[in-house]
Amino acid sequence: MTTDARRHHDPEVRGFASDNYAGGHPEILAALALANGGHQVAYGEDDYTAHLQHVMRSHFGPYAQAFPVFNGTGANVVALQALTDRWGAVICADTAHINVDECGAPERVGGLKLLTVPTEDGKLTPELIDREAYGWDDEHRAMPQVVSIAQNTELGTVYTVDEIRAICEHAHERGMKVHLDGARIANAAAALDVPMRSFTNVAGVDVLSFGGTKNGMLFGEAVVVLDPDAVRAMKHLRKLSMQLASKMRFVSVQLEALLARDLWLRNARHANAMAQRLAEGVRGVDGVTILHPVQANAVFARLPHDVSERLQKRYRFYFWDEAAGDVRWMCSFDTREEDVDGFVAALREEMKR
Amino acid sequence: MTTDARRHHDPEVRGFASDNYAGGHPEILAALALANGGHQVAYGEDDYTAHLQHVMRSHFGPYAQAFPVFNGTGANVVALQALTDRWGAVICADTAHINVDECGAPERVGGLKLLTVPTEDGKLTPELIDREAYGWDDEHRAMPQVVSIAQNTELGTVYTVDEIRAICEHAHERGMKVHLDGARIANAAAALDVPMRSFTNVAGVDVLSFGGTKNGMLFGEAVVVLDPDAVRAMKHLRKLSMQLASKMRFVSVQLEALLARDLWLRNARHANAMAQRLAEGVRGVDGVTILHPVQANAVFARLPHDVSERLQKRYRFYFWDEAAGDVRWMCSFDTREEDVDGFVAALREEMKR
Amino acid sequence: MTTDARRHHDPEVRGFASDNYAGGHPEILAALALANGGHQVAYGEDDYTAHLQHVMRSHFGPYAQAFPVFNGTGANVVALQALTDRWGAVICADTAHINVDECGAPERVGGLKLLTVPTEDGKLTPELIDREAYGWDDEHRAMPQVVSIAQNTELGTVYTVDEIRAICEHAHERGMKVHLDGARIANAAAALDVPMRSFTNVAGVDVLSFGGTKNGMLFGEAVVVLDPDAVRAMKHLRKLSMQLASKMRFVSVQLEALLARDLWLRNARHANAMAQRLAEGVRGVDGVTILHPVQANAVFARLPHDVSERLQKRYRFYFWDEAAGDVRWMCSFDTREEDVDGFVAALREEMKR
Amino acid sequence: MTTDARRHHDPEVRGFASDNYAGGHPEILAALALANGGHQVAYGEDDYTAHLQHVMRSHFGPYAQAFPVFNGTGANVVALQALTDRWGAVICADTAHINVDECGAPERVGGLKLLTVPTEDGKLTPELIDREAYGWDDEHRAMPQVVSIAQNTELGTVYTVDEIRAICEHAHERGMKVHLDGARIANAAAALDVPMRSFTNVAGVDVLSFGGTKNGMLFGEAVVVLDPDAVRAMKHLRKLSMQLASKMRFVSVQLEALLARDLWLRNARHANAMAQRLAEGVRGVDGVTILHPVQANAVFARLPHDVSERLQKRYRFYFWDEAAGDVRWMCSFDTREEDVDGFVAALREEMKR
Repeated sequence: MTTDARRHHDPEVRGFASDNYAGGHPEILAALALANGGHQVAYGEDDYTAHLQHVMRSHFGPYAQAFPVFNGTGANVVALQALTDRWGAVICADTAHINVDECGAPERVGGLKLLTVPTEDGKLTPELIDREAYGWDDEHRAMPQVVSIAQNTELGTVYTVDEIRAICEHAHERGMKVHLDGARIANAAAALDVPMRSFTNVAGVDVLSFGGTKNGMLFGEAVVVLDPDAVRAMKHLRKLSMQLASKMRFVSVQLEALLARDLWLRNARHANAMAQRLAEGVRGVDGVTILHPVQANAVFARLPHDVSERLQKRYRFYFWDEAAGDVRWMCSFDTREEDVDGFVAALREEMKR
Repeated sequence: MTTDARRHHDPEVRGFASDNYAGGHPEILAALALANGGHQVAYGEDDYTAHLQHVMRSHFGPYAQAFPVFNGTGANVVALQALTDRWGAVICADTAHINVDECGAPERVGGLKLLTVPTEDGKLTPELIDREAYGWDDEHRAMPQVVSIAQNTELGTVYTVDEIRAICEHAHERGMKVHLDGARIANAAAALDVPMRSFTNVAGVDVLSFGGTKNGMLFGEAVVVLDPDAVRAMKHLRKLSMQLASKMRFVSVQLEALLARDLWLRNARHANAMAQRLAEGVRGVDGVTILHPVQANAVFARLPHDVSERLQKRYRFYFWDEAAGDVRWMCSFDTREEDVDGFVAALREEMKR
Repeated sequence: MTTDARRHHDPEVRGFASDNYAGGHPEILAALALANGGHQVAYGEDDYTAHLQHVMRSHFGPYAQAFPVFNGTGANVVALQALTDRWGAVICADTAHINVDECGAPERVGGLKLLTVPTEDGKLTPELIDREAYGWDDEHRAMPQVVSIAQNTELGTVYTVDEIRAICEHAHERGMKVHLDGARIANAAAALDVPMRSFTNVAGVDVLSFGGTKNGMLFGEAVVVLDPDAVRAMKHLRKLSMQLASKMRFVSVQLEALLARDLWLRNARHANAMAQRLAEGVRGVDGVTILHPVQANAVFARLPHDVSERLQKRYRFYFWDEAAGDVRWMCSFDTREEDVDGFVAALREEMKR
Repeated sequence: MTTDARRHHDPEVRGFASDNYAGGHPEILAALALANGGHQVAYGEDDYTAHLQHVMRSHFGPYAQAFPVFNGTGANVVALQALTDRWGAVICADTAHINVDECGAPERVGGLKLLTVPTEDGKLTPELIDREAYGWDDEHRAMPQVVSIAQNTELGTVYTVDEIRAICEHAHERGMKVHLDGARIANAAAALDVPMRSFTNVAGVDVLSFGGTKNGMLFGEAVVVLDPDAVRAMKHLRKLSMQLASKMRFVSVQLEALLARDLWLRNARHANAMAQRLAEGVRGVDGVTILHPVQANAVFARLPHDVSERLQKRYRFYFWDEAAGDVRWMCSFDTREEDVDGFVAALREEMKR
């Protein structure tokens, strides 16, 4: 099929900047074609979105309800609005994406107050939650109604199943709900080698932001309600939050392609393995320190600033804390062994100059 | 290419419910494949979004700046926020999509006050605007800062170039800006047989919501700033409105495929022609009245309620005003002549029963 | 007692511009002094706010809960937020204060969508409500959850008890709540010669904005919850809406002074009687037309524009519709017979010039 | 003058819970009476509000513009909205009133993102500001546009003039504005023994929340714009934030009474002196530690929990950090020497039991 669009990029160039620098997995593109043609009811009453419910329930239990949305910020803000009243507040790590990377959308769109807690490694604990979990009757204080955690975290760390279960129990005992930002949920499941349900619905999470874009979709995420009693009027909330796709079949079929069998896991395992390969390749290099345990598809490292700058001319990646010389290297579903090996070789070269 | 997703629908079934019941045009799908592969900078710094600027300028003049977003409500609310202060209000027809079909997103996300005016046919005029264009110094009143019109309107009517120019002059003389909701802008241009610029930047419109989804894209629209002096911080506004796509290349390349040559116009002309064919087929039928001039791709008609109900079992379409017996029949880029002819035949049959 | 402040105005000058041009009733000032001295718990836990509950219940029934606030817009927006979800909408007359006189505060502070209905005389009816009372399941539409009426209306008209009862029944049958904006509730009760309860809690109103400022208080209103099951977390809502007075005793004691016996009614009856006197004095004047039935403390009239302008140099009042030559003359608790008589004489003089 | 209200409290009882447990200063009540009677234009066009401008300019320089409002949260949120765009953020101490004591009003009403910084003593510094002052071009981050400080701080500490000047210079160099929350500004000026201007307009502060309620007014504060070029449409912002008093003369005349000569300073000096007396009386007591330098009218102390609890039965005051045994004792304009001496004696008694 022809198109008037032209190719403007070199599809052989890959870097380590972010897993959303990657495109879509070929099986995802094939799914789009499959869902195309003919007419389907708009705004979510299509057959693909209906079928998606079965697929999601096979992963997240018989009560799961999936509400496809456009992007991660949208998923998070819809989910958090669903779990809060007008006077509600959300306890989260101060490094949480909702706090530092969403331009204030939770506050501006949802009128949400974030009660942030400093953490060592991006992970909340019952003790850390308690620093902000108080004062429910005090009208001067935004009322803590939700604990929001990310799996895996923005620092690449992964909660164990027990850690999440403990957080959910702690929150529920205090009348709060739990939201899990699963922008990279597949990488976490792959890292833990457990089904996704084990640290979501089974562990007590109430609402999940399921992330597809970073794991091979072109676009699209889903708010997955795990406890339907915890929410109301989800469709209205999605619409007023401007996250309602008219041709929703094209979000839903991507999610189906990812989740119907094991594409989600293949992609995540591959990305994680590439991160391990990268970490191993780098570990022997003098002057380079791996900063956190490499648990999923991110490698955080410290190395001389000038080396990073030279290396960035050859492979794209970001400084994480430029003053400290810390960098983040992300692997994705399409990272190849030769990409990693080439990068490690380049790093060794630049270290020697 | 294989995929784990399965086909859940019959791609040969089409109806007249809405132009967003259609899927994506094959050339659009081809464009997605073209943009795939390799790594591209996320969040709009990719080569496709860069190239899109050239394409948009070829249509909307040398100052146009395109900001791809996910959907029409998102485009509208980003655009209106860009043109208003915290104390601003938007004058619009009471039938406007922003007033009746966005679940209050302008109010809730943007804190916008809509000053609505009843119209005969969905079209504002300078006189109608003046019913709400006053009191700029009165702090008790939300300050009118924007006039928002839709081309074509929700009632399927199309402004002439002169009508839009008069509105822009009128608004600008009073210190207000003009937003045009172009969810079906291509159908309007095809109906008027003029370039899109003639009733947007050339006529004085400040910011445009450019609609792609209803004209053959899978998803995606763009806020197109026609007067860059009228706005600030568009990227921040898009992000905080949760309309920033990480893999933006896949929105931009669809827009390129639509706009680089004439796919936008081919699709729109075809949809409009099918609406004409439908109107002509129906005009001879006793008991059916065409309600408005058929100018674009919508046909509004009045017919016996029971006939509509029987007909809906054979072809999907919506009541527009059920009490009055009014219905809306929409044609889209993929409506075929035989679809129309079959529908007209079915209508004749049902009228006789 | 001395004060460093100086008197800047002539306390003998009164006009007909608005009932909030008047100051405070002397008994209200005396109440402030009574409540002064010593320490009282701040933010509403004081003895005056506690006692106010008894006073309010003597008027509005045994379930009434009063939440003193600062002003009418604050009362309305707190009340409406209490009765709506994030996705809720409010049906009101298009002339309602919440729609035209609050600078968009309901939309901006509460994220509320107003569904406005044109009326003849500022009064809603079940039939008028039904123009917007539909589509509760349609996520594209803000969900109608509240009907808001004003007693008396912005046009000076007064609902009968039966009219309000019918509205409440109609709304409740459809799952909606009823809010009554009682900025001039005392004038309405005086006009109808019934207790306030008869058209509020007894008639089925759920939440009331009780107005004190226009009836002789220096400042202060109260959200009065008539059906406690209809709301939650009122104290949080008041606080986050910036309507929580720290030294609340000074709001509560004014409300007590007004409501403990009959000051509210004396003031209202007097203002209404002055409006009647004014209307009677004017009715004989050629070229002056009284526009609406004079039911409370407002007189709307039409007279030659130049006469109004000359008259405004002698007495303050406002044009209501300047193009039509319509004016509004308001009487207040402190309007004196000689004020009215002097005004009527002045009007006669100016009509003759 | 009689009133139907009754006295419900003992005006001889005073404690150390908060300066807003106190009532109004008698000179303030006298001012209310002075401004009463006759008609004055509503909503701020009265003679008292006009005169207030002169009074405010005598304190805060020739460009100062005062906008009376109801309460401190209202003043802060109006001021911060005036200094930010829709995409703006506010850098403040994590202990700031706007962050911990306003139930999320800045976020919910203003859509503001707060970028909070931990501090030692409630005071920001240029270095601390820099932890959040970056990323103005990064759309993923709320844009830092304002630094908000409190003088004195919530911890009772007082910035020096030089400290505030350094903050203002630092902020302005980075294109940010400075807001000062002056809920207890008079106590700070008294503590520093400088005019208020020296640490506000002269030091570079752009907009001030001037606090009157805690210093002897019944209610009322003012947003004081020190740099008129930094703001727009203040009257609209005040109205839409529901902070516009109809009978504004009664706020303005209280501010005049406070500020026309030296009542503000007399009250503040007295409260500060009482705090010093309390601190001195307590310093000799074994087992009681004064926690911070006592600079204004607050004393923070640590003592055995059971002693505090017994003492609270005799005098009202609050725990500040109950787990640690920390308490806060506030003095106010009406605290008497015998109140302090009685309290110290009671403390000594309870320490011995």
